[in-house]
Amino acid sequence: MKLIDGKKVANEIKEEIANEVQQIKEEGGKIPHLAAIIVGHDGASETYVGHKEKACTQVGFDSTVLRFEDDIAEDTLLRKVHELNDNPDIDGFIVQLPMPKHISEQKIIEAIDPKKDVDGFHPINIGRVVIGLPAYVSATPAGIIELIKRYNIETSGKDVVVIGRSNIVGKPISILLSQKADPGNATVTLTHSRTKNLKEVVSRADIIIAALGNAEFLTADMVKEGATVIDVGITRVKSDKTKSGWKLLGDVKFDEVAEKAEYITPVPGGVGPMTIVSLLQNTLKAAKGEIYPKF
Amino acid sequence: MKLIDGKKVANEIKEEIANEVQQIKEEGGKIPHLAAIIVGHDGASETYVGHKEKACTQVGFDSTVLRFEDDIAEDTLLRKVHELNDNPDIDGFIVQLPMPKHISEQKIIEAIDPKKDVDGFHPINIGRVVIGLPAYVSATPAGIIELIKRYNIETSGKDVVVIGRSNIVGKPISILLSQKADPGNATVTLTHSRTKNLKEVVSRADIIIAALGNAEFLTADMVKEGATVIDVGITRVKSDKTKSGWKLLGDVKFDEVAEKAEYITPVPGGVGPMTIVSLLQNTLKAAKGEIYPKF
Repeated sequence: MKLIDGKKVANEIKEEIANEVQQIKEEGGKIPHLAAIIVGHDGASETYVGHKEKACTQVGFDSTVLRFEDDIAEDTLLRKVHELNDNPDIDGFIVQLPMPKHISEQKIIEAIDPKKDVDGFHPINIGRVVIGLPAYVSATPAGIIELIKRYNIETSGKDVVVIGRSNIVGKPISILLSQKADPGNATVTLTHSRTKNLKEVVSRADIIIAALGNAEFLTADMVKEGATVIDVGITRVKSDKTKSGWKLLGDVKFDEVAEKAEYITPVPGGVGPMTIVSLLQNTLKAAKGEIYPKF
Repeated sequence: MKLIDGKKVANEIKEEIANEVQQIKEEGGKIPHLAAIIVGHDGASETYVGHKEKACTQVGFDSTVLRFEDDIAEDTLLRKVHELNDNPDIDGFIVQLPMPKHISEQKIIEAIDPKKDVDGFHPINIGRVVIGLPAYVSATPAGIIELIKRYNIETSGKDVVVIGRSNIVGKPISILLSQKADPGNATVTLTHSRTKNLKEVVSRADIIIAALGNAEFLTADMVKEGATVIDVGITRVKSDKTKSGWKLLGDVKFDEVAEKAEYITPVPGGVGPMTIVSLLQNTLKAAKGEIYPKF
């Protein structure tokens, strides 16, 4: 069993980005600038945005956080989005979800200029991913692809089973891995709550992407000897063995599955650390005009 | 074996649309209006656009065809697209592909107002299909879904295997059938040229969608007893048994597969006739503002 060390890879990539930013600075170029909009005082959202700010600082990006109270009108928020769209100093920005109920998340997302949509949530970017055109890929699937790349895991002709059909993980990673690309060219089966013979389907997989959000769901009897197992789940459960009284569990029963897997991601320290790095990579691409020409 | 009669269903739907248009007329409403842009004199494109015009007449739609020579500048064509976007009388329009080489098809497609994109080729519509939002679904996958609906073929929990990962058929039908919807909720495997154990994968399927464009590729030994077989392929081959000297073959070796299948589509007369009907349905939806609010 080889552990896929997402934390280590994330740090390597951060270092690579920091070096590139350093070089841009030395050449007198424009420093990549990521902005985030946060509405209200949701604890998790605050934490995420805080991590993103910190990551920007680590790699030398400029970062701006726009904070609004949760009674902000949808119109006002849309105007703020348009201001960021029009601000040439901002290369990319995200709107931290969830939004208060009176605001349509989809309306806000579709108001973001796709060229600055570094979260990859705008339907144009999702559509372009499907067609195989350059696009911002959202953080978790992009992070999974990066891990597969860095560990040289062969996907071409392999049987991949994705568990969970969410818009932000299951669907996009299925599409990406079945594309004519490297990584890609896999035979992908997308499974979900209505799948009847799940154990049988999953046990045929060379690569399993577990993204259903159900702690320790994937057990050893569902896994083929020598499979690669990517665990996207994060569930917080009570624990009397940790200081905080909580611990994080993935969708994979790690200890027993690890004995059969060739490669496996741990939770925490697997896919998780890659997501912020994907956002940094997208922001760098935005600053360099790699996906869409600079305007 | 039950034959899925696409021609019959297409005629039924045309009649339903014609009745609805008649009612709109009687109520003094606006007649749905489909426009098509055609560039150059490609024989197949002329034929398709001709069929679309005829279908519009059959159901009582207004239809306009804009013809341009194949030396038209990309800028000029983009201007024409914008004129159609801005013309309140046009509910939806299509740009018949392929385009001459000096014109970027993707640029033209992305210039179409997604609200009028009744071909469903704009990345926004593709992205919205993926997310599960209201969107124009492109003609062939929409036609397949409609056939499945009209024949009450159960898809929930079924194993679907799609052969061929094209942007206009394989990818979108995979996405649609795996969605939380009815039809939908299937466990979908998308296979393609890099799939290693294709025969084994296909022979597990309850529903097979053959969309690889390879005449009579799917043989009986690949099909499970009682499977539903949807044949999307159309290949024109020489024949000394027809007047024209040509005949059309699907991706399925019909005679032998028909003996094992519960439901099967013929070629011609299966999925084919449904595509123009899908375009009419999308145009009607556009006229009624069903996908996007009227503006």
